[in-house]
Amino acid sequence: MNLIQRQQHLLPQIESGLQFFLDSFDFNHSLPLKHMIRYQMGWEDQGSKGKRIRPFLVLLIASALGGEVEVSMPAALSVEFLHNFTLIHDDIEDQSPLRHNRPTLWKRWGVAQAINAGDALFSIAQLSMLDLQSTCSSSIALKAAGLLNQTCLHLTRGQYLDMSFETEDNVTPQIYLEMIAGKTGALLGLCAVLGGLTAAQDDEKIRILDDFGTALGMAFQIRDDILGIWGNPEKTGKSVSSDLQTKKKTLPILVGLVESQPFQNLWQMDDVDETQIKQMAGLLEECGARKFAQQKAEEYTKQAFDALEILFPSPADKNPHAETLFELCTELLKREI
Amino acid sequence: MNLIQRQQHLLPQIESGLQFFLDSFDFNHSLPLKHMIRYQMGWEDQGSKGKRIRPFLVLLIASALGGEVEVSMPAALSVEFLHNFTLIHDDIEDQSPLRHNRPTLWKRWGVAQAINAGDALFSIAQLSMLDLQSTCSSSIALKAAGLLNQTCLHLTRGQYLDMSFETEDNVTPQIYLEMIAGKTGALLGLCAVLGGLTAAQDDEKIRILDDFGTALGMAFQIRDDILGIWGNPEKTGKSVSSDLQTKKKTLPILVGLVESQPFQNLWQMDDVDETQIKQMAGLLEECGARKFAQQKAEEYTKQAFDALEILFPSPADKNPHAETLFELCTELLKREI
Repeated sequence: MNLIQRQQHLLPQIESGLQFFLDSFDFNHSLPLKHMIRYQMGWEDQGSKGKRIRPFLVLLIASALGGEVEVSMPAALSVEFLHNFTLIHDDIEDQSPLRHNRPTLWKRWGVAQAINAGDALFSIAQLSMLDLQSTCSSSIALKAAGLLNQTCLHLTRGQYLDMSFETEDNVTPQIYLEMIAGKTGALLGLCAVLGGLTAAQDDEKIRILDDFGTALGMAFQIRDDILGIWGNPEKTGKSVSSDLQTKKKTLPILVGLVESQPFQNLWQMDDVDETQIKQMAGLLEECGARKFAQQKAEEYTKQAFDALEILFPSPADKNPHAETLFELCTELLKREI
Repeated sequence: MNLIQRQQHLLPQIESGLQFFLDSFDFNHSLPLKHMIRYQMGWEDQGSKGKRIRPFLVLLIASALGGEVEVSMPAALSVEFLHNFTLIHDDIEDQSPLRHNRPTLWKRWGVAQAINAGDALFSIAQLSMLDLQSTCSSSIALKAAGLLNQTCLHLTRGQYLDMSFETEDNVTPQIYLEMIAGKTGALLGLCAVLGGLTAAQDDEKIRILDDFGTALGMAFQIRDDILGIWGNPEKTGKSVSSDLQTKKKTLPILVGLVESQPFQNLWQMDDVDETQIKQMAGLLEECGARKFAQQKAEEYTKQAFDALEILFPSPADKNPHAETLFELCTELLKREI
């Protein structure tokens, strides 16, 4: 079964699992709160469900390590609920009006109701994780719930840093990496760990899975940063140099601010035209900022694949699920730059 | 040991437990996030710590049922962290600028950082609850974590209703009671249940504890509603008839809107002076709205004390801790109206 077949096989199970779990709660006179959650999950008003990459990763890793999909399912559903909770609150915090071409939750129902709906979804994520006690064991459920909340704490630290960067002049590339370790690395690390934990792997394997997921997240994020400046708009769906326009402090830009005075001068201008944006992108190449980011992305990509090789060393260990896992990572990390 | 002595004995333990638990997390470059949490908890900038009534209730109930303070402590700390998490988000949702005479978190650090700090505190509450695995057992920790999140879901349903009342014309007293069951009853019910659960009580006792805590919360809230209209300002610290001025839809007011056309007419006026407010309060008495609310408060008060009597039926069972528990409830529910 290749990646696409595996996705076609698992995604409907994930989707019905998510819906079934939400339906298990009685909302009584607060039904519109349930509607908001269903809207966010993409089940109402022509929503997009997203790729469900996180629960898919949990289940794929568990399968590759000899686990059963049914056993790991509560953890998979939990990370997807959790991810959507973070999206609701992030969209408020970043004042993003649109997601998947629809108004974000706060834009449609106001900030107050959106904060509250996010909190409800957070609790639902927790309850799903605790359900591991019925498919795995009490001790795995407790471990998983603990990891879930340590991860959330890591996410809030990353989010704190990300927001503080807006008004901070001296953001070093090192603190930037700490920020994305929280915002992107931590949740993918959790997905990988949960795959292993629910497939009854030992602590050493869990540690390597954590390295794998975190590195995967970091590599993915830095590639996204590079695409945000030099991406082919036809392939990424974003406008060229959008991060230079929106003044988003990504890795290449932070390096450029340290390494290139001419870049810094242009960055500080209030309004820049297309020519100046091209000029800025050029300056980032000249001063080595693009190369630095690319090296970092390659470093984390290598870390992720090295971890996979340790987990599945011999051709015999590369069972079909492991092959699909390699395929997924290649897909995620080899996008056109 | 009477109530005040017991508080003097337990509050420092609760306080140092809370601080110690928060200090166990590494905030790295996100230290200001920890500062925000400390601010909310009342440990920074001349803050007020509040009465810590919820953790005190957990510990008092556990003691009264023969449990040990140390064993129940993680649950007690968890409910206090949880309560403060709800305050942070509620203050944003209600746009409240002040709490304990200081700017609220969002007022001081902005909405975005405040949402995020609330999320961090929510995770910390969860982690504290999971710590019951080391003082009690895995099965109690799992049960408690499940109850915590069911309660949070109940809180968000109550909060949804509360916010929706602002724009809703037909709020029945029954839906109002459903709302406060979520907003006030659920968390006090959880405190009582956790006291019993961590003192290894059976399901039947736990059920009665839930009834007790929920009724206590409901009675307290309805008394607060009555005080919000007829309270003695010198004793409550609030201005007279403040809920009539701020147009807060509390229980007596909702009954008045159904029962008295003259009240409804005055309620719909944009600006009312002191004479009209007195007139409105009088109309609420005339139409039986005050009496209805008082009866409801007494009903829930009776439920709470009946439950206590079942839990501690004979004089022999009324150990000193149980006596203190009766004293606390009397204190909470017998305020001057």
